[in-house]
Amino acid sequence: MEEGGKSRVPKKLLLFAATSLLLNALFVCYFFVQPDGGRSEFGWFRWAAEEAEAVAAISCSGHGRAYVDGVPSDGRPVCECNTCYAGVDCSVPVPDCPADADSGDPLYLEPYWRRNVAAGAVVVSPWHRMSYQANGNYFISLELERHIRLLHDAVGNAVTRDRSVVFGAGSTQLINSAVHALSLDSGSNASSFIPSLVVATPPYYALYKRQTLLLDSSEYRWEGSTANWVNLSAPPGAKFIEFVTSPNNPDGRLKQSVLGSSLVINDHAYYWPLYSAIPAPADEDLMIFTDSKVSGHAGSRFGWALVKDEKVYQKMIQYMQVNTMGASRDTQLRVLKLLKVILAKVGTEGDIFKYGYEMLSERWRMLNNIISSSKRFSLQNLSPQYCTYFQRIRDPSPAYAWLKCEQEEDADCEAVLREAGIISRSGKVFEAEGYYTRLSLLKTQDDFNQLLMKMEALVSKEKLLSLLVDERVFR
Amino acid sequence: MEEGGKSRVPKKLLLFAATSLLLNALFVCYFFVQPDGGRSEFGWFRWAAEEAEAVAAISCSGHGRAYVDGVPSDGRPVCECNTCYAGVDCSVPVPDCPADADSGDPLYLEPYWRRNVAAGAVVVSPWHRMSYQANGNYFISLELERHIRLLHDAVGNAVTRDRSVVFGAGSTQLINSAVHALSLDSGSNASSFIPSLVVATPPYYALYKRQTLLLDSSEYRWEGSTANWVNLSAPPGAKFIEFVTSPNNPDGRLKQSVLGSSLVINDHAYYWPLYSAIPAPADEDLMIFTDSKVSGHAGSRFGWALVKDEKVYQKMIQYMQVNTMGASRDTQLRVLKLLKVILAKVGTEGDIFKYGYEMLSERWRMLNNIISSSKRFSLQNLSPQYCTYFQRIRDPSPAYAWLKCEQEEDADCEAVLREAGIISRSGKVFEAEGYYTRLSLLKTQDDFNQLLMKMEALVSKEKLLSLLVDERVFR
Repeated sequence: MEEGGKSRVPKKLLLFAATSLLLNALFVCYFFVQPDGGRSEFGWFRWAAEEAEAVAAISCSGHGRAYVDGVPSDGRPVCECNTCYAGVDCSVPVPDCPADADSGDPLYLEPYWRRNVAAGAVVVSPWHRMSYQANGNYFISLELERHIRLLHDAVGNAVTRDRSVVFGAGSTQLINSAVHALSLDSGSNASSFIPSLVVATPPYYALYKRQTLLLDSSEYRWEGSTANWVNLSAPPGAKFIEFVTSPNNPDGRLKQSVLGSSLVINDHAYYWPLYSAIPAPADEDLMIFTDSKVSGHAGSRFGWALVKDEKVYQKMIQYMQVNTMGASRDTQLRVLKLLKVILAKVGTEGDIFKYGYEMLSERWRMLNNIISSSKRFSLQNLSPQYCTYFQRIRDPSPAYAWLKCEQEEDADCEAVLREAGIISRSGKVFEAEGYYTRLSLLKTQDDFNQLLMKMEALVSKEKLLSLLVDERVFR
Repeated sequence: MEEGGKSRVPKKLLLFAATSLLLNALFVCYFFVQPDGGRSEFGWFRWAAEEAEAVAAISCSGHGRAYVDGVPSDGRPVCECNTCYAGVDCSVPVPDCPADADSGDPLYLEPYWRRNVAAGAVVVSPWHRMSYQANGNYFISLELERHIRLLHDAVGNAVTRDRSVVFGAGSTQLINSAVHALSLDSGSNASSFIPSLVVATPPYYALYKRQTLLLDSSEYRWEGSTANWVNLSAPPGAKFIEFVTSPNNPDGRLKQSVLGSSLVINDHAYYWPLYSAIPAPADEDLMIFTDSKVSGHAGSRFGWALVKDEKVYQKMIQYMQVNTMGASRDTQLRVLKLLKVILAKVGTEGDIFKYGYEMLSERWRMLNNIISSSKRFSLQNLSPQYCTYFQRIRDPSPAYAWLKCEQEEDADCEAVLREAGIISRSGKVFEAEGYYTRLSLLKTQDDFNQLLMKMEALVSKEKLLSLLVDERVFR
């Protein structure tokens, strides 16, 4: 019994210790032999990863973020704070800070990517796509093109069949590329060439005019509002190039061409379930989209056009070659990863369209609540509409509020808001009346909260004043 | 003794087993609790890293590489082979494959970045710089700007003091931006405005002409060679915008303005110790550089201009805003990392300039060896020159060989080479005579080896023919 006991205990222990030792040996091997140490190519990512994680771990109190390429202090990148926050960790509210609702900066999607950080991160090796060549002189990633088509198919917002895809540095570059291609697509010979007339229907996105005027050409000229041409035919030999933005920037309405005979550039930047119901897939000859308003990566400068006509497509490609030799291949790699994440989550709880729609419709509802009690201000009227993507009637969730000052003395509505500490974009910028001004609903939660607060104060003041007036009247 | 032995053995074992178990527990914790599992932000890079490493580990036999965003086969990216290699792992030489020495694709630097993979890799989080804003409407990373200045200071190839920096999608975009800015900088009022005349001295980089013609404008027009204007003054009210490429593409010579009175765009794409001696820092008013010819990342589409005149600078910035809203922020992050590596290694054994110079001067020497025994072909004459960067006299290491066909019947030199299985770029493309053609020395080692082989065969054939002729003469 004793003998047996003596031999049984050490045997079990020995087996146990041996297993444990073996496990430790395996762990040690894993750490020091196989992937690490910078000795093999395998494991090389770690230095870059440590850098990225160190920056991600910097606390900016939820009111900012540090970036790897930020300006460092003491060798360490510092917080870049949201508007109205300051301090080393962005924890200090800036007093008397105006609400900035000017730009269409899509930072409302930043928290989405904070949640999906593992799935959406990308490691770029230093030898990644150094060449000019990527799919020959088209300079495009075929995998990205394929995923763009998959995305449109999954969302149902555009027909990609029988269309070629052009990549650009945001829709910005594609817009001029399209104007250029369509104006050269005249069929008339050089000697009798008449410049194309580029038009849009107010209120319209100001870049169309600014860009067409600055990047001028003998092939086209800016001609302003379609209103001047609705009941007139084009001058002999000339043709119209018409911008149709649907949903429209600034007012979020679905739009169609006004001039029947024109060549149309369909800017569908906002035709995603984030901002609009999708009644049916868009099916026009030339459609422009931008990653800035899908994944929210405005800084990446990436957009694409779906082009039906082969000649127009070739001319746009030629423009891309000569203007920038295509869009950054680094960005193409990153956008591919982002679209893969978006696609994988379509219809799930983590769906970006669900996430963004819920945020924007809630913002719209909150702003509406405030404005609806005002007689001085009103918002554009948007109705719930059936959406094929969500397969139900959905509330409006526009990217922008198109605010109107209803009183005659408020002819400069932007100035009225500025006076109340709200930075907006005047209707005049969109070739509309000064009674209108645009409020961006796309920015950070901090920006939106600030906007609500200032707007509420403004409307409260209006109500207070009207009470005082009533009192005086009835006294 | 027995009792003592009985108790001593288990005690040691127990201690040992306990220590080992504790270690096991720590390792398990490390793996499953602390950094991994996607539960904490820390460790999120791993998924992306695994993807990048899996691709880096794909063997393409040294004749190709797989990319994360390559077109997959069975779910896995496949090798993209160098010209003249094929097969799943690029191990199969393509028979009768022509040597492609056409483009200036800087893949000769790819092995450098393969060596520096750990230092040069970058992890891009999905929430990295989503905003349009980066340094306000200038859309630039201040850290990158600072490192560009540091690089010029370290290399001594350009004076950055009193200059502003403009970022663009390669020098390609900056070139038109500069033409645009200089032609608007007229001082004359709009009514009496005369378009600027854009000129260059042959042989010149073909893009100048192609771009100026395609992206035409009422403010400037392409006017061709400076030769037509050397002894003439400009038409009243007009001014010249002159391209000066130094070192010149295609012939590698240091150049200066030909027309005294012109506004000059100095294209210094090749003014790096890689391609040229650096006699002194360039000190002109408007200088353009491109990352494509420093780090070798042509696909990233990134360049910069150093601009002295504040008005010209503002006009270039405005062009960048309206054309593309700045250069990709993803690319700016990557280029920052690459420049940091380059800067850290200046003057060390791993110096990129030393690496590239040695490779290109060796290529030039080898090609010269072959051509020098030919009477039919010659190369441009380049002399050793003192370089302030290497602090010694250095051999030539041009980016391109500017080959001349010396015989009258070889008026189409490009065709002569094409016949011999060499793809080059005809002198006519550079507005020079067809007796000239350009051979790129910047491409992969495979491309260069193929070029040498085909060139050697061509020259051997010439020698054989001349022997036969001699024999016939003296017979």
